[in-house]
Amino acid sequence: VNPRTQSVTVGIVGIGTVGAALLDLFETNDRIIRGKAGCDLRVGVVCDKRADRVKIARSRGVRFSTDYRRVTDDPSVDIVVELVGGTTVAGEVVMRALENGKHVVTANKALLASRWDAVFSLARQRRRAVYFEGAVAGSIPVVQALNEGLAGNHIRSITGILNGTTNYILTTMTASGRSYATALTEAQRRGFAEADPTMDVTGADTAHKLAILSSIAYSRWVKPSHLRVQGIREVEPEDISFARGFGYVMKLLGRGEERDGAYHGEVRPYLIPSDSVFATVHNEFNAVMIQGSHAGDLVFVGRGAGGAAAASAVLSDVIYVARGTAHHTAGLAPYVVYDPDLEVRLANRAEVPGSFYIRCTAVDRPGVLAQIAAVLGRHQVSLASVYQKQPITARPLGVPVVMLTHRIPEGRLESALAEIGSLTVVKGKPAYYKILDSAGT
Amino acid sequence: VNPRTQSVTVGIVGIGTVGAALLDLFETNDRIIRGKAGCDLRVGVVCDKRADRVKIARSRGVRFSTDYRRVTDDPSVDIVVELVGGTTVAGEVVMRALENGKHVVTANKALLASRWDAVFSLARQRRRAVYFEGAVAGSIPVVQALNEGLAGNHIRSITGILNGTTNYILTTMTASGRSYATALTEAQRRGFAEADPTMDVTGADTAHKLAILSSIAYSRWVKPSHLRVQGIREVEPEDISFARGFGYVMKLLGRGEERDGAYHGEVRPYLIPSDSVFATVHNEFNAVMIQGSHAGDLVFVGRGAGGAAAASAVLSDVIYVARGTAHHTAGLAPYVVYDPDLEVRLANRAEVPGSFYIRCTAVDRPGVLAQIAAVLGRHQVSLASVYQKQPITARPLGVPVVMLTHRIPEGRLESALAEIGSLTVVKGKPAYYKILDSAGT
Repeated sequence: VNPRTQSVTVGIVGIGTVGAALLDLFETNDRIIRGKAGCDLRVGVVCDKRADRVKIARSRGVRFSTDYRRVTDDPSVDIVVELVGGTTVAGEVVMRALENGKHVVTANKALLASRWDAVFSLARQRRRAVYFEGAVAGSIPVVQALNEGLAGNHIRSITGILNGTTNYILTTMTASGRSYATALTEAQRRGFAEADPTMDVTGADTAHKLAILSSIAYSRWVKPSHLRVQGIREVEPEDISFARGFGYVMKLLGRGEERDGAYHGEVRPYLIPSDSVFATVHNEFNAVMIQGSHAGDLVFVGRGAGGAAAASAVLSDVIYVARGTAHHTAGLAPYVVYDPDLEVRLANRAEVPGSFYIRCTAVDRPGVLAQIAAVLGRHQVSLASVYQKQPITARPLGVPVVMLTHRIPEGRLESALAEIGSLTVVKGKPAYYKILDSAGT
Repeated sequence: VNPRTQSVTVGIVGIGTVGAALLDLFETNDRIIRGKAGCDLRVGVVCDKRADRVKIARSRGVRFSTDYRRVTDDPSVDIVVELVGGTTVAGEVVMRALENGKHVVTANKALLASRWDAVFSLARQRRRAVYFEGAVAGSIPVVQALNEGLAGNHIRSITGILNGTTNYILTTMTASGRSYATALTEAQRRGFAEADPTMDVTGADTAHKLAILSSIAYSRWVKPSHLRVQGIREVEPEDISFARGFGYVMKLLGRGEERDGAYHGEVRPYLIPSDSVFATVHNEFNAVMIQGSHAGDLVFVGRGAGGAAAASAVLSDVIYVARGTAHHTAGLAPYVVYDPDLEVRLANRAEVPGSFYIRCTAVDRPGVLAQIAAVLGRHQVSLASVYQKQPITARPLGVPVVMLTHRIPEGRLESALAEIGSLTVVKGKPAYYKILDSAGT
């Protein structure tokens, strides 16, 4: 069989931003795509529930349907690309496609994070490929790097700026000193945040992506519910500014690590050194750092959002699966190693160590700092530095006291801060952020 | 067939730093490796011309030979790992292994750059896999990213800090103001430069790697001889220091780009913006930036040198090929797309545009700057800024005049500088460096 004479047909379900960009890519880079795929790769049918999108298909001479079964059940379709989003219909599309013997390419992080077991068990049983480079970090080929490029390494940790919206908001807050609310409005106005930004700003989106990367790294299903998740809605510009004085910038990170066989994963705003690679990752860009037992520290930076970037990732999967389809090899070897018998053993969160930044607002009166320090001392929280600046203007609501701790178990800090928050000389709840020691080179 | 019960045997030729690290990896991460490979993957035989290295093999219960044919001709060996280096014996090992129906994993950039055509033609003819992640940028899985992760993109450019030795030397010169010679000696003392550093400091090693990356990106054999290659031996600390004043740091880059169907590749010291990702890549670290038509700018940073980092890359290839071997799919679909009929069309070097930094040493006398500027003007070299500082100490050899140009074809600058170098008021040959507009986010 000469694979070049063979044709491989793709069906696409969901013609939103990414789907339209994918169709555009197929048109623009047709010659490159056929060369790389080594076969006659073409889009046969597309589906969208919005009937008015038929125009997008028609302009490209592709069949259109509003019923996804016209894609998943079409005998001529080899590869189903699921770009519906969400977990309900998307889940039906993926499972039905696999049941029908199709290979699947998806960019759906929510679906994979929540149904890893079901999807990869069925894929293995049917010996079909499920590829999902577009689900994490847009155009950065980190799924492949982690799954294949670092195979053979024990993955010590995965750390990522995985959400473009929150990175855009934090970049704006850092550059301009604006409040969270103002920066969010600006991000929405410029198309970097959705009208309902909940999934992004609560850290849920980052949690899905971290769960997926962790599941690949540790060959077991790490669920979003295994993670400690904190978003950026309570970040004050004041903390960004103080942190800068100490040589740090704030980024929302997803970070998973395995130590002594126990996994700990968290999504939270971190302070990272201003001279690290991560500190140069601004606006809607994404970055991932992987620490491998032998590869050392690897950092990947690229565009995390946007139709073209996601479509590029989806297309790389499609080409790869098409090459395998033409040679009758796709899906025979499982892409992701997933062992349903392996349990995730979680580390005790209170015992996970870190260095921290703390700010509390205290009454401007002698002895107050000593009182705070005494509480920290009782909880064995040792301080690396303390910063208390006399305010230029009168601050009837109190003055900020900023402290950096040495490396301590977070549980101790939480107990200490609960006690400090209840001191009468301290106003409001203390803010605290974890510090990342290293973020690339 | 249950692939888990199947065994795949690896033979390694060359047990230097990388080979020993690879054996170490096999031992340390045995469980992870078998899990990822999905089969009983083991090292069966190793070879080194140094008979005293038998100890390394024996301690691991592996057969040893000083004759590479005991590996390439062994019927039980499925995958031959070539870690000999150089092109003579290494070439025999790779070709003989393919002739004998083995899959090949190599980290040999010189071999691939000089015999791309022979190696991949034979591999395709025999339907055997040749993987080479370790040949470029150590632990960074950039070969895979370019070959697969970005498949479907037109690759606009590839830019890399691809040589750890020269990056170490330039980092030292930048941090301490030391001369090239002193920084080289320090790099040698600390194990970051070889006793004979020629391949590194002349840019030849970077050229091999850029040729390989370009060959992948453009599906045709880009040879080192297609590249303009300049090393770092003539770099003066003075230029590093002046460049810093303008907001740039100096890095030896390999950069290939395709514009209007014409390829231009070059290896040379570049000035890059100090706030770019590349500027944070210090010492022996490597970095690669790829600009894809749809993926946008991607940057990868990681350890470029060291046995463990290279071994990690080699192992990822071995695991991947082993998975394919166990499922009888390895080598069926060609890994690298190589079309022997495609010619490399080179851009006219004189017409390739860029912005440049120029320094010449001039007699400290009124009117000299006007004379230099007049020559530049005649050659249509327009200046963006000029810097001429009165020296604190008397400089009988002249004062430096530093200028930055707007974007111009390099040929014009070369003609202008030839003329400026011959002015009686200018001492010695003017130094000039290309400026990279963007190096990541």
